[in-house]
Amino acid sequence: EQEVREEIPGGLSLITATPEEGFQLALALARKGVTETQRDKEVLKQLRPAYAHDPDSLIAASHVVAVHFQTIAAANNYWRDNE
Amino acid sequence: EQEVREEIPGGLSLITATPEEGFQLALALARKGVTETQRDKEVLKQLRPAYAHDPDSLIAASHVVAVHFQTIAAANNYWRDNE
Amino acid sequence: EQEVREEIPGGLSLITATPEEGFQLALALARKGVTETQRDKEVLKQLRPAYAHDPDSLIAASHVVAVHFQTIAAANNYWRDNE
Amino acid sequence: EQEVREEIPGGLSLITATPEEGFQLALALARKGVTETQRDKEVLKQLRPAYAHDPDSLIAASHVVAVHFQTIAAANNYWRDNE
Amino acid sequence: EQEVREEIPGGLSLITATPEEGFQLALALARKGVTETQRDKEVLKQLRPAYAHDPDSLIAASHVVAVHFQTIAAANNYWRDNE
Amino acid sequence: EQEVREEIPGGLSLITATPEEGFQLALALARKGVTETQRDKEVLKQLRPAYAHDPDSLIAASHVVAVHFQTIAAANNYWRDNE
Repeated sequence: EQEVREEIPGGLSLITATPEEGFQLALALARKGVTETQRDKEVLKQLRPAYAHDPDSLIAASHVVAVHFQTIAAANNYWRDNE
Repeated sequence: EQEVREEIPGGLSLITATPEEGFQLALALARKGVTETQRDKEVLKQLRPAYAHDPDSLIAASHVVAVHFQTIAAANNYWRDNE
Repeated sequence: EQEVREEIPGGLSLITATPEEGFQLALALARKGVTETQRDKEVLKQLRPAYAHDPDSLIAASHVVAVHFQTIAAANNYWRDNE
Repeated sequence: EQEVREEIPGGLSLITATPEEGFQLALALARKGVTETQRDKEVLKQLRPAYAHDPDSLIAASHVVAVHFQTIAAANNYWRDNE
Repeated sequence: EQEVREEIPGGLSLITATPEEGFQLALALARKGVTETQRDKEVLKQLRPAYAHDPDSLIAASHVVAVHFQTIAAANNYWRDNE
Repeated sequence: EQEVREEIPGGLSLITATPEEGFQLALALARKGVTETQRDKEVLKQLRPAYAHDPDSLIAASHVVAVHFQTIAAANNYWRDNE
């Protein structure tokens, strides 16, 4: 099972080189929203099997990622300069 | 049943030629939000029948696609140049 | 009961003549998010009575339409030229 | 109980004179998202008591109104000219 | 328990002097979305204990406030002139 | 367990020095949406164990934070000047 990585290396910035990095940052921010609300890592580890095997929880998590990705994509002007 | 396609060919870019391609990209990003949270493909395959036959899960999935499509549409300036 | 119309005539475009057409397109995109996830029409037909008689499912569906309508309204500059 | 009013007088336009009218339009669009999905008025009438007495359904309905109001407020440039 | 205050003094305007006032307006609009759907104050009073003691209902209500606050913040150009 | 901190020091402003401060403000606004709806601190303390040990509640809370963070990021022009 993937360990909960909540710390964001080098301090939080919304500017990323590529859309893929932007998506990974969105995943990290979605997790950060959880780990800042429930700081007890043991509790989080116990909860992981529950949501990671529940389709509705996985869809809800993907929804939070989508909102953060929308923010990050706008911050990076949709990486239009990469084209 | 449709296999979970999570890899996005040629590296992630938000720029697409048409709205239809943009919608397909939104579907792929919604799935990517799930597959990056639950990396075990066997688990995902077992979950598919559950959500694919539950109207509320399908509506929730469509909601995530709508958020990503909003991001992609803005990235492509709503494909106004196609008109 | 209204048949699931998922194909969008003439290829997908976000540009519509009126807000009403824009709303109808938003309905079609909300459905497309479902039919692209569950491609089996027989399954979809069986699911329809369930969500179409459940107030929470209908509200959730209306929510997806609202997100798509927001995208389409921005794409058409809120049909300001129609005023 | 308030009758489901789904038809929007004079054809749909997002431009309104005041924020209050904008809010009423958002309510109508949220209902329209339901009535266009479930066209059977008898069914809708039977469903009303259920959601109108369920706090979570009422909050979910208010959420759909909030998304439409965001669209309508942007369409009217937040009625800044009214100030 | 806090009485449901749904009427907005002096007619609805999205322009406020401070972010705090903007947040209070977002709370009022979130409630207005409920009170305009369920106009029976007696029913609303009976429902209050249910959602006010349910963490998921309180989170869902906070979500509606967040959407309205996003609209109001944009309407006030994020109160940048206040800095 | 982390005490519910709802008061925002020095009056509410959306302008922050860094994305990290912006994220902390988003957390505070998500909580404020709850504490302004349920003002009884004793009730809130009793509710905390319930949502803080429920993955779906934690995901829903993270979703509210994501919406506020989107607002705050736009207010700060995505901290582009920090780059």
